Amino acid sequence: MREVAIIGAGSTQFGRAQWSLLKMMCEASHDAIADAGIGDRPVDAVVVANMGAARNNRTAGLASALVDRLNLFPAAAETVENGPASGATAVKAGFMAVASGVHDLVLVCGGERMREVNNFEATEFVSYLSHRYAEYPYGVTLPALAGMFARLYMDRYGVTPAHLAMVAIKNHANGVLNPKAHLRVGLTMEGLLTGPDAAMNNPFVAEPLRFFDCCPVSDGASAVLLAPATMAKQFKKTPVRIAGIGQATDLHAVHERPDPTELPAVRLAAEKAFKMAGLKPKDIDVAELHDAFTILEIAESEEVGFFPKGEGHKALERGETQIGGKLPINPSGGLKARGHPVGNTGVSQIVELVLQLRNEAGDYQVPGKPKHGFAVNFGGFGNNVVATVLARGV
Amino acid sequence: MREVAIIGAGSTQFGRAQWSLLKMMCEASHDAIADAGIGDRPVDAVVVANMGAARNNRTAGLASALVDRLNLFPAAAETVENGPASGATAVKAGFMAVASGVHDLVLVCGGERMREVNNFEATEFVSYLSHRYAEYPYGVTLPALAGMFARLYMDRYGVTPAHLAMVAIKNHANGVLNPKAHLRVGLTMEGLLTGPDAAMNNPFVAEPLRFFDCCPVSDGASAVLLAPATMAKQFKKTPVRIAGIGQATDLHAVHERPDPTELPAVRLAAEKAFKMAGLKPKDIDVAELHDAFTILEIAESEEVGFFPKGEGHKALERGETQIGGKLPINPSGGLKARGHPVGNTGVSQIVELVLQLRNEAGDYQVPGKPKHGFAVNFGGFGNNVVATVLARGV
Repeated sequence: MREVAIIGAGSTQFGRAQWSLLKMMCEASHDAIADAGIGDRPVDAVVVANMGAARNNRTAGLASALVDRLNLFPAAAETVENGPASGATAVKAGFMAVASGVHDLVLVCGGERMREVNNFEATEFVSYLSHRYAEYPYGVTLPALAGMFARLYMDRYGVTPAHLAMVAIKNHANGVLNPKAHLRVGLTMEGLLTGPDAAMNNPFVAEPLRFFDCCPVSDGASAVLLAPATMAKQFKKTPVRIAGIGQATDLHAVHERPDPTELPAVRLAAEKAFKMAGLKPKDIDVAELHDAFTILEIAESEEVGFFPKGEGHKALERGETQIGGKLPINPSGGLKARGHPVGNTGVSQIVELVLQLRNEAGDYQVPGKPKHGFAVNFGGFGNNVVATVLARGV
Repeated sequence: MREVAIIGAGSTQFGRAQWSLLKMMCEASHDAIADAGIGDRPVDAVVVANMGAARNNRTAGLASALVDRLNLFPAAAETVENGPASGATAVKAGFMAVASGVHDLVLVCGGERMREVNNFEATEFVSYLSHRYAEYPYGVTLPALAGMFARLYMDRYGVTPAHLAMVAIKNHANGVLNPKAHLRVGLTMEGLLTGPDAAMNNPFVAEPLRFFDCCPVSDGASAVLLAPATMAKQFKKTPVRIAGIGQATDLHAVHERPDPTELPAVRLAAEKAFKMAGLKPKDIDVAELHDAFTILEIAESEEVGFFPKGEGHKALERGETQIGGKLPINPSGGLKARGHPVGNTGVSQIVELVLQLRNEAGDYQVPGKPKHGFAVNFGGFGNNVVATVLARGV
């Protein structure tokens, strides 16, 4: 298996897109290619991550369309869909394309334009990921599943609404520092929970989850350019190696799981990624976790092995996961504040980690020149998860 | 790069599905796994090919759902979309997963259920593949593009309506012999063109293309199980090696192409596949080409190198592409008669070739124990094409 490195990264502004999906994807892709400085060297293949273009944007075959717009003929092109885990799944597909020797330079671009539909339709659309017969027809949405999960988790491990708010406060504080974040607004415990207007300004969405426990519906695109590690040093920027990548699935219907507070697909995906990388959770210097709901950041930080089960909220309380803490989690603002263009997110997490490992993250740069990064991209309600370990240098 | 073999294959009946998309995909997948006889050995990854589930079937994350139904946890899972070339693109993704060493046993399943929408909506849906700004808003459908292509092609190379009808007659005759084909009805030149009722029964769809020059809107699912070639002999059936696989893209908008009668993506994809396989077009014993419209079978048979440019219709006239001819093309009935469940088709072509190379195609078996098979899966209007060379044995 050939070793694979990321030689370029780019992304659009996240938020409400003024532009079409394809234009956003072009911008991110162009930035990634320019960042790598490959000159006239051809891109051999394009992998696009997207969840809903056929439904929301009346477009299919996005990858071929992107090749056309960027004039990358005759590059191979495919679109990968894996719900909210589409992004990292596309990175994995690109990884295998390079690792196998089939392609050399592979562009992976994730994009989603959710604003073509309203918020109600967006929730309905994302619920296409729920179980077709056991969940969807009963109106079970992703926020509803997250609410039930949060209730059980809080009850079992002593996580309180204040802990959930701490995740939101931390990630919004980080988002304020990230010029490309969707929500650049600071939050306070008073505003979210304890103040007189909190109940009005932060109402329940799916009890116990409130408005600011849920990520926004965002538009955005991100891209990375992959190359064989042996070739990576020819280019402009410090290469970042994909040291390990793991994926695992779990029972689709959440109520069928032996213990619904466990996220075995997160655990297994992380184990595989660490094994491939020959590293352990304690080696990680910065992480981007899939905080579509605040509770998930806490739960994932335990399942991947950063903290013992039931202890994630205590580490959060101690400030260990802040920028400058022992293990900064979501310095970019995460899905919570940077935003969550569903099919895009896994790619944007990798872009953020590349910036951190190259020491280029500006105001939200994690101190101490981080060497190893880690991402979890969470599909469905944890039924398809991809974990990635990145390492600076080749 | 590890060599990759197909160790099992399965497919549903094609036609109007009585069952859900997921149930069809389960049936095909189960058949492929049973065909390989892998016993308790786990499937490591699942790649699904589908174009329209989010729009037409209100479902996303199909690959995870299939893992759930088949109880293949914690297998990795992803869905690949590439319009009508989704199927072969998924086979290529599975090929790279095995070739890279990331996964051993990989199930590739293509499925599409088009009958959830009516024929008008199906045409609209497939036109999502046309250029977003240069074609789609002007109402350019795929049959319209094929009609314009056919007119130019016929004018330049002396192809007549009778030649188009010969493709339909041949492929329907083959479809009659294939118990899983969608349209098992024989056609005659009198019925299609020369008889008194021909104009009524075979009206123009997009002149010069008539009703029977166009493939049907079908439902169906097919699956293959891939393994490293070194492992393939452990299993039940004669392995079929993926000797070469090539992919290429072209300009999206057909009118922008320097010569709209050329299909350079077909030519390049085939060249790459033959190069990887170390074989030439003359080594091929049986082929499945993407005859979504009759003219395409003729044009592709030339572009891939079976016949000189402009000579494909003459070989057809001489009967060379019939079962029993020098190079049987579409013995399964092709898209024309077996059917064209859009995202599925590329996988079903591979399943048909596996049956031929294993000498298991029954009434439509090509004589002489074919050793090498070849498929073209054509996306958009030729803007994204995958070609595959298969070889019996490892």
